[in-house]
Amino acid sequence: MNKGMIFIISGPSGSGKDTVLAEVFKLCPNLNFSISVITRPMRTGETPDGKYRFITREQFEKMIENGELLEHNEFVGNYYGTPKKYVEDCVNAGKDVMIEVDVNGAKQIREKIPEAVSIFVCPPSFEVLKNRLTARGTDGAATVEKRLAASISEIARATEYDYLVINDDLSEAVENTVAIIKSARLKTKMNTGIIDGIVNK
Amino acid sequence: MNKGMIFIISGPSGSGKDTVLAEVFKLCPNLNFSISVITRPMRTGETPDGKYRFITREQFEKMIENGELLEHNEFVGNYYGTPKKYVEDCVNAGKDVMIEVDVNGAKQIREKIPEAVSIFVCPPSFEVLKNRLTARGTDGAATVEKRLAASISEIARATEYDYLVINDDLSEAVENTVAIIKSARLKTKMNTGIIDGIVNK
Repeated sequence: MNKGMIFIISGPSGSGKDTVLAEVFKLCPNLNFSISVITRPMRTGETPDGKYRFITREQFEKMIENGELLEHNEFVGNYYGTPKKYVEDCVNAGKDVMIEVDVNGAKQIREKIPEAVSIFVCPPSFEVLKNRLTARGTDGAATVEKRLAASISEIARATEYDYLVINDDLSEAVENTVAIIKSARLKTKMNTGIIDGIVNK
Repeated sequence: MNKGMIFIISGPSGSGKDTVLAEVFKLCPNLNFSISVITRPMRTGETPDGKYRFITREQFEKMIENGELLEHNEFVGNYYGTPKKYVEDCVNAGKDVMIEVDVNGAKQIREKIPEAVSIFVCPPSFEVLKNRLTARGTDGAATVEKRLAASISEIARATEYDYLVINDDLSEAVENTVAIIKSARLKTKMNTGIIDGIVNK
């Protein structure tokens, strides 16, 4: 059986990454969403078996010590990380995994798993990005400016990724992400078994 | 305007490459078939403005001398080559080009254009390959054996290609080839202009 493939996806606030991903998962039945471990308290509406596993700081630090995390970050006093085991279990069972992380997490994973295929979801222009962040209407001007600056500093690191998906038209962005996932599986180095099978007959 | 992309495709006798390609061209309107120059005489049914341009040995050797060919080979006394100009004109006009060549031609092009995306079309198994070559019914057993050996020696070099398209089910092979073409355009290094446009606003 072929091993599963590992994908990394990032996209700043205003990229629409979550909407793209939700549609991509509907179209890729072999694709699994990686789980995260975090140390912040569970919020209303979250469940212990969702994409986040809520653990204590002590448990988290133990995981760091034991090398059980593919990447981790500390943000406003809380730890966020991606456990290695879930990803490995998927890959060994022939299932693809999508790891959703920020640019720092992506960098850490890329260093550990160079063959992981990384995708950056990007808004089509500065204007669209600004409009999307403003249109939420829930944040004041100062917060919008802060989010905009944060998004732009993430976009400046998009060059570290293998692929860029511009999310202007949603269905096109979804179609393109699916094409990237499909083509990754077709790389010759993933399929040497078939070549050997014919040549060494 | 973005430049066009260059694709190289090869596939041995029995791979069904031509059938795959014919369908792919219907689905990719921006994709152009590269032309070849050859020194053998025109055959019945061929036209001077088709995929082959018929030239003399002298003209061909002049093209080699002037560095006007991306690749060339001599086969049973005739020259076959891919003129650089057609490919460059397409790319500069933002059009993608598909260059159909054998494994030797592909190697020459890859050395000159490392960013070209190469695809090898492969039969799913030795048995299917043998059946396809036999089923034509036009060749004797010795010819079939010779073709089979030639195909296998090409397949042994499939590892030199970026992507492997297994042609078992035709529609799947076509869909996969289209996904490769689509994803090539999404590589981050092809789209740094969009990143710069947002970051340097």
